[in-house]
Amino acid sequence: MRVTRACYSATLGSSPIPQAKLKFVPNSGTYPKGFNVSGVFVGVKPGNTSKPDLALLTSDRSCAGAAVFTKNKFQAAPVTFSRKLLQTKANAGIRSVIINSGNANAVTGAGGLEDAANMAKTTDQRVGSEDSTIVMSTGVIGQRLPIQKIVDHIPMAYHHAGDSHKHWMNFAKAICTTDTFPKLISRKFTLPSSPGIEYSIAGITKGAGMIAPNMATLLTVLATDAPIAPTVMPAVLKHAVDRSFNSITIDGDASTNDTAALLANGAAGGVEVSSQDSADYETFRELLTEFSADLAKYIVRDGEGATKFVTIRVVDAATEEAAREIARSIARSPLVKTALYGKDANWGRILCAAGYALISPPGQPINDVPEIVPEKTNVSFIPADGSAELKLLVDGEPEQVDEERASEILEMEDLEIVVRLGTGDKSTVHWTCDFSHDYVTINGDYRT
Amino acid sequence: MRVTRACYSATLGSSPIPQAKLKFVPNSGTYPKGFNVSGVFVGVKPGNTSKPDLALLTSDRSCAGAAVFTKNKFQAAPVTFSRKLLQTKANAGIRSVIINSGNANAVTGAGGLEDAANMAKTTDQRVGSEDSTIVMSTGVIGQRLPIQKIVDHIPMAYHHAGDSHKHWMNFAKAICTTDTFPKLISRKFTLPSSPGIEYSIAGITKGAGMIAPNMATLLTVLATDAPIAPTVMPAVLKHAVDRSFNSITIDGDASTNDTAALLANGAAGGVEVSSQDSADYETFRELLTEFSADLAKYIVRDGEGATKFVTIRVVDAATEEAAREIARSIARSPLVKTALYGKDANWGRILCAAGYALISPPGQPINDVPEIVPEKTNVSFIPADGSAELKLLVDGEPEQVDEERASEILEMEDLEIVVRLGTGDKSTVHWTCDFSHDYVTINGDYRT
Repeated sequence: MRVTRACYSATLGSSPIPQAKLKFVPNSGTYPKGFNVSGVFVGVKPGNTSKPDLALLTSDRSCAGAAVFTKNKFQAAPVTFSRKLLQTKANAGIRSVIINSGNANAVTGAGGLEDAANMAKTTDQRVGSEDSTIVMSTGVIGQRLPIQKIVDHIPMAYHHAGDSHKHWMNFAKAICTTDTFPKLISRKFTLPSSPGIEYSIAGITKGAGMIAPNMATLLTVLATDAPIAPTVMPAVLKHAVDRSFNSITIDGDASTNDTAALLANGAAGGVEVSSQDSADYETFRELLTEFSADLAKYIVRDGEGATKFVTIRVVDAATEEAAREIARSIARSPLVKTALYGKDANWGRILCAAGYALISPPGQPINDVPEIVPEKTNVSFIPADGSAELKLLVDGEPEQVDEERASEILEMEDLEIVVRLGTGDKSTVHWTCDFSHDYVTINGDYRT
Repeated sequence: MRVTRACYSATLGSSPIPQAKLKFVPNSGTYPKGFNVSGVFVGVKPGNTSKPDLALLTSDRSCAGAAVFTKNKFQAAPVTFSRKLLQTKANAGIRSVIINSGNANAVTGAGGLEDAANMAKTTDQRVGSEDSTIVMSTGVIGQRLPIQKIVDHIPMAYHHAGDSHKHWMNFAKAICTTDTFPKLISRKFTLPSSPGIEYSIAGITKGAGMIAPNMATLLTVLATDAPIAPTVMPAVLKHAVDRSFNSITIDGDASTNDTAALLANGAAGGVEVSSQDSADYETFRELLTEFSADLAKYIVRDGEGATKFVTIRVVDAATEEAAREIARSIARSPLVKTALYGKDANWGRILCAAGYALISPPGQPINDVPEIVPEKTNVSFIPADGSAELKLLVDGEPEQVDEERASEILEMEDLEIVVRLGTGDKSTVHWTCDFSHDYVTINGDYRT
């Protein structure tokens, strides 16, 4: 088989932002009170001569803080450090987040842990607060950080911090690796108990991109000036992350560094949200979930080599867990993803991926999987333009598919796949992209 | 991002056999007594004008029979039919296997089940034995079989059956879909209790290939003239399949039709192997496992778009299950597979895939994963030419990798990755291939 590699080229994290992505980059925003942010150039990665790679967020007062970390057994030093910090501080007394891109500080042993602590301590000293800095890193793994260079630039990052849209944009840019556009959103909201107070939330994230020789890392920072109590922070963040950053698939690989953090400083005033049974909590939880999902979708929009944005909705499921596993299995299947790239209405592959989502691993006894009943299963495409759905499988029976209509739907960049299981009333939604030649180019060819 | 699709071409199941694969196709063989096989042309798939697509195996006497089927919840009609047959017959009284390619008879409802039964019954009538035929199908899903055409050709398949190498080669060819070469091996062996008797085993398989709009299907038929009792057949086959056909990964998708069947007719005589505690059983189990693994490796050699044959060995593991899950996770990772295609010694991605192999799914609490201890983990490349191993990670610490040596090793078609966990004495071996531009072309572009 002849492979003519030279035909393929992919843009690898280079500026400028591609024309098609400009619509995802805001020109203004409303940012939470009391937070100052910056993104400055250090040159963490050899060869980086200008891209900002050190990001700092500080609050002018103490914050409640929580984070969701990767479950990968090989956890990077900043993950270990930050997890311990939040435990020790019982989710209170957080002032800063310091992040470097260009080097993941992963698989770096005791020295790496010292480096992470050093980044935090240097930030703490500037801010004037002990044990109050969350640390994140993304980039190459297995190499020690150029730590002196980084800590030498932290005062500069602190000095340049501010609260304007431009500051937030620099902050967002500094955590990017091979992302083709910075990912920043902000929003205003109110809480039922203080209808007269206007709260703000802002968030940045970076997506599935990699630099040789390392892996995709997802980092997220969410900041709000609403008064959320430390005690409810972990629960509200976990709820939101499960339905946003944990509901997207680029390639199914989970990195050593994945971290999503939420800081709430209460600078806008009002009554503290301290009970999970309150209307305020409920409102904030829904707001945070939707906000996180909107941010997470940008990662999918920027998936490596992606040409499609695909929503997978699994409904009428016996349990939410079953719905999620089925959605994840469809989102992860290389056969489904290449069919989407090829604009092929291949419901057989969708069904197949659903059918093996809940089965026991090879070598284990067959399990029953009551969550799926073939005769009750329905699969449809929902067109992005609001036109009628295209039924592919109805109660386990294949429909005679209008191929012309299917092609029309698959020509659009956005697509929704709905799987109706007919075995309950639970549901889930998952976002994914396709697998293209460019994905292989970006992840396979960059060293050749 | 510009994608210039026209640059890529992939051979889709067309003859002739690629030059590089000819070494995997035997010119002769030693076949088990009492079995006759054939492969004839029916034209199951519209557009197929000459490729044999109906395969028949019959035994001149009753066989013990067993099969391992897909666990996919959407099971094809021939899977449902054959599973029930083997249950009803308690693994005894089997005479034939009838297989069509070009249509999977999957998601075809009650009519599809009737078609599978009709194929079996027509075969039974020719052979002169009731309820004795295993049925398999592979190809397009969601479409009814051209059943009349198929049953009309079964007498011809029976008529053409024979026991020569050419007959076995036709039998192997007739089950292929997008395979680039037929997969057939045969071997002689003896059992301890009858050292004077020469037994034979032969097997055919087909691999991970797909025709629009359907999915990869793995079919295997193993036949021996050794006298294996029906009672021990399921156990011996399961042992072998777990360590062969269940230890290979092309893309991680498990089809609706996967079936591996073993028939033993005892035609060579000797003492029946009826106890799992006997030396004969032990010998046969090891023979069958190695034989199956050799056949399974051909599927990896013929993986769609594959340019590399990769052995993943996970050793010093706490449990065999943990070793297998870790090997599967590495084999399935698109990041690992694209790095292998790019000839990149990316141990970070290997480590990453190991690190998330055993973690709980998103939304579930963190589990401990005692099977992996970062400081005890070692990763090496074993060169295919027998030269010294290249250590990438030693006791959790990255080695200074000689990139030139790494490139040398990765230039070879064959590669072995060894992961030493240091947490026990269990091990596993898994075979996989890389992800290339051609994989995307074959699975994404064929309809455009």
